[in-house]
Formats: sequence, C-alpha cells, structure tokens
Amino acid sequence: MQIACIGVGTIGRGWACAFLAAGHRVSLVDTMAEVLREAQDSIHRTLAILHEAGRFGSVTDAMARLNITSELGVALTDVSYVQESIVEDVAAKRELFRRLDQLCSAQVVIGSSTSAIPGSAFMGELGISARCIVVHPTNPPYLVPLVELCATPWTAESTVAMVEDLMKQVGQTPVRIRRELTGYALNRLQAAVVGEALHLVAEGFISAQDLDKVMTNGLGFRWAVAGPFLTGHLNAPNGYHDYMTRYGHIYRELIRNLRVDYAWTDAHIAMADEMIRRCSGGCSIDELQGWRDRALATLRPMLRKLEAVKPGQT
Amino acid sequence: MQIACIGVGTIGRGWACAFLAAGHRVSLVDTMAEVLREAQDSIHRTLAILHEAGRFGSVTDAMARLNITSELGVALTDVSYVQESIVEDVAAKRELFRRLDQLCSAQVVIGSSTSAIPGSAFMGELGISARCIVVHPTNPPYLVPLVELCATPWTAESTVAMVEDLMKQVGQTPVRIRRELTGYALNRLQAAVVGEALHLVAEGFISAQDLDKVMTNGLGFRWAVAGPFLTGHLNAPNGYHDYMTRYGHIYRELIRNLRVDYAWTDAHIAMADEMIRRCSGGCSIDELQGWRDRALATLRPMLRKLEAVKPGQT
Repeated sequence: MQIACIGVGTIGRGWACAFLAAGHRVSLVDTMAEVLREAQDSIHRTLAILHEAGRFGSVTDAMARLNITSELGVALTDVSYVQESIVEDVAAKRELFRRLDQLCSAQVVIGSSTSAIPGSAFMGELGISARCIVVHPTNPPYLVPLVELCATPWTAESTVAMVEDLMKQVGQTPVRIRRELTGYALNRLQAAVVGEALHLVAEGFISAQDLDKVMTNGLGFRWAVAGPFLTGHLNAPNGYHDYMTRYGHIYRELIRNLRVDYAWTDAHIAMADEMIRRCSGGCSIDELQGWRDRALATLRPMLRKLEAVKPGQT
Repeated sequence: MQIACIGVGTIGRGWACAFLAAGHRVSLVDTMAEVLREAQDSIHRTLAILHEAGRFGSVTDAMARLNITSELGVALTDVSYVQESIVEDVAAKRELFRRLDQLCSAQVVIGSSTSAIPGSAFMGELGISARCIVVHPTNPPYLVPLVELCATPWTAESTVAMVEDLMKQVGQTPVRIRRELTGYALNRLQAAVVGEALHLVAEGFISAQDLDKVMTNGLGFRWAVAGPFLTGHLNAPNGYHDYMTRYGHIYRELIRNLRVDYAWTDAHIAMADEMIRRCSGGCSIDELQGWRDRALATLRPMLRKLEAVKPGQT
C-alpha cells in the first residue's frame, strides 16, 4: 500500500518505520528540508534495530520503499492512507486538513496522531470528514503496538474498519475509544501512575530507582501478560466479580489514600532526575535509549507468541 | 539454608516454591492438616511449571527438600529465616510473633508477608523486634520477583541487609519502602490504575478487553522494560528534568481530569465480569491461570537477561 506520513517529528518518523517494516511504500513529507535530511539517517538506524530483531528482511529494500519530500502534492500521489503527525496546534491541523480535503482522492482514509486535540476540533465540515479518524500511537510506534482509535461524530464505520485492518496488518494492536476523551485511555492510566509515583518519591517513601523496579520487576512485568481486568479475574476462584466482591473495599480504602494529584515542585523533579542519573552510572541517554529499543524489540515477538497460545481466543 | 514458611495460603505456598526453586530447605507449617495435604500437590504442580521454564534441575529433589508439618516447633528447628504469611488479622499476628519470640534462636530473621497491617502493629516489644521486618511479595512470588521491604522503628540495619541478600540470592528483586505506608508502592500504583480503568469501562469509553490490551500491548509492555522515571528520562533530549519541564503541565492537566476515585457499583463490576468472560471464549479460570503462569515463567528469564546488559549498571 502507498502511505503518506505527514510531519517528520519523532512520531512521524516512528510511523514511517512501522509501515516500512510491514512492507508498505511510504512518502514522508514535511516543510523543513533540513529535518527531512536528518530523518533519512534516523529511519535507517531504527530499521537496522528492527531488522536485527527479525521483524523484516532487508533494510536496503525497506529504505528503497521510502520517499522523502517537501511537496505535499507529491507525497499524496496514489496514496490509500495518510497518517498526520504534525505539531499539536489546532490552527495548523485545521489548515492541513483543508488542504487534504482539496488534494486527496475519494477513497483516501486519513488518521491523525493527535494526543491533545480532539479530532472533532479539526476534522469537521470537510468533504473528507467521514474518512478522518484519530489514530493515536504509543511511542515509539514501531516497537509498542498499542494504537487508540477515536472516531469523530462524522467518521464512517467503514473508515474505522479500514484503519483497524491496516493496523493489524502492520502488526499494531488497535483499540476503540468510543467517545472523545482527554488523554484517551493509555495516557490517563500513565498519568495516574506518574502522579502517585512522584508523590511517593517526593515524600521520601521510596527512591526513583526502586520505584522503577516496582514496575519493571513487578506491576509492569505482570501487566505485560495480563491487564488489570484479567489480573483480577484470575485472582479469585470465581473470577472478576468474585474478586471485586472480596477486595473492592480494600481498593476503595487504598484509593482514598492515594495522592495522584500531589503538587510536586521543580525541586522534587530535580531530585528524581539526580536519582535516575546516579543509578544509570553516568551513561548517556542515547545509550540507554538504544538499550530500551533493543529490549522492546526482543520482547515484542515473544509476547506475540505467548498471546497467540492464550486459551479461549476469539 | 533452612527456611520456615508459616501459613499455607496462596502466598505461603508461593514463598515455599520460590525458596525450593532456589535450592533451600523449606518447612511449611500450618494448623490445618487438610490444607497441608492439598499444599503438597499444589507445590508439586507449581514446581513442574518452574522446572519446565528452566528455573532449576529436578522437581523430585526440590520436593525432597520440603517438609510439611502442623508443629511450629518442628518447623523452626535449625531455621535461619522465617517467612510469615498467615491470615491478615492483627491479633493472630501478635499471638504468632509472641510464640516466635519464645521459640526462635538468637540469629533467626523473621519476615512478614503482611500487606494490610503495618509491621509496627505486631513486631514491637519483643526480644526478636530488631530481627523482624515486612517482606511483602508480589503474587505469585515464584514468578513475579518484586519484594517490598519495610522496616519497623525497631528493625536492625543488619536485618534489612540479611533479607536483601537472601532475596537477591533467591532471584527476587528487593526494594526499600523507607517509612510505613498503606499499600506500600506496588499496590498503590495498582489501585490508581484499577480506579481509573473502572471509570473508563463503567462510563463506556472503552471495553474491559480493550483496556487490558492498552496494558499488555502498550503501557505494561513498556513498563516491563523501563519504569515511569526512566521512561520520562528517555523521552526528552536532556533527561527527566527536561521531560517534566516540557510535559509536566500536560500531566497536571491530565491528572485533574482523572476519576481514580470513581464510585463504581456492583452493576459496573458485573458488566466488566461479563466482558472478560466473553472475550476469553468461555475457557476456565484454571486454564487461563496456567497460561498466565507459563507466560510469566517464560518472560522472566528474558527480562533478567535484558536487565543484565543494561548500560551503566551499578
């Protein structure tokens, strides 16, 4: 499939890698020529990591399917799908979607990576409105499969179906957010944890390093296999309802105790920053990012295999 | 090492498996003879799963290191460490710790699995007070390595050091909770997610099945590799302080929007229960638990290997 990725920031480049790794042809377009040159190298490095993890055959072949341009009209030639990932600015998105309305042929479906602006703020009153939908990735999209789909009031059901199919084919995991919602689901759950984690570290209950271990060696490890609902379902003899009947009051009591909305200060953030640097032995952010990306790339196929043998799949 | 596990519920049996798999001799003690007979079979099944995942050599050898008894005095013979996992009842724990005070020799260290009762409520005013500490596992402890250590005001630093060493040797990951705290860290973070997840499902923003995917394919997957602090550190060019300077206001706004304390009803819980059952195709909780345990057992050595090559280790 011919796909256009508009916007060459971290998310736009990430999407280009995900589509290229899945065998698609990608036009990457932005207005800034210098950024586009950097993008070429950065995409090559990312594809090399994915290739190393066994995700696809040849980096050279994949790069040959990439076309980088500063001309929107060129990028949109023969495309079936457009992924928009420009700056989070409602005026800029409105202006771009008006241009897409003029330039796109009748069958093109357009997904927006927006996380902060509801799709209805810039996808309405256009010929293409029925073919526009929010397709919110998790960073980096080529490593973390989860994608949140959120329709506007004008999005056609066929648009949702097309994007669901495309995402699955690309190896992403689409979920439906059924009404527009600040932060969708993933960033809301993340914010709840970030808030309480900062409370615990700022008040000296635990170090930032140990709090991270609570996730990597405890909660996050378990959640990578079973989400909060299945976790509850498997923790009582008769399933989820039984679990919440037994332990719901404990959760309510714990929740009353939380300080998710803790008013952290810059000094708290600086303290956490220092803790993180100390425990990573002075090695650079680049080195750590490379390690994280390789770790996620290694883990992903293993999790896929485990999911595939989960009993009772529909 | 000779270890006594007191209490034969899920947690007590889980601890016995963790210690047996690491090569220790274990006395498992409870007052109820019938439960003890079931425990033997259940521990054998669990050890078989761990053996299959390559955690240790022979199940028969491991079972030969297990001694099940209803006599506390017998269980405590020659022990160096005691892990208490009896019912969460402060009077029962006080009574048990008074008996341990009489029965244990001078060097024995005693960890309690308590999650709901602060250690200081039953570990004080005893000859053994300096050698008592909360050692709160994550269920199941033989699969999820994270252990929260929480000293009382009377716990000796040598007790903390001994337990940290033992836990590491057993393959667990100890973290320090530096003051007594309701729910420690892990259950607080879990409660924050459970509360917001119930809000989103109860209000129809997302299905329970999709919410679980947000974790397994998104947040939990990422958190299994990097906790919330390292995640932030790697998401901005100059690290965590830079990240929170750029995005802190977005977190604050998101957090204001959360409904972690959503007042769910029994009808909401029943709805979530039905969604979970529907998406697991009617297969039994036992089958799903077996799958989860095998998945965690498969994943754990892989995560250990990835952690071992993390740059800048101290």
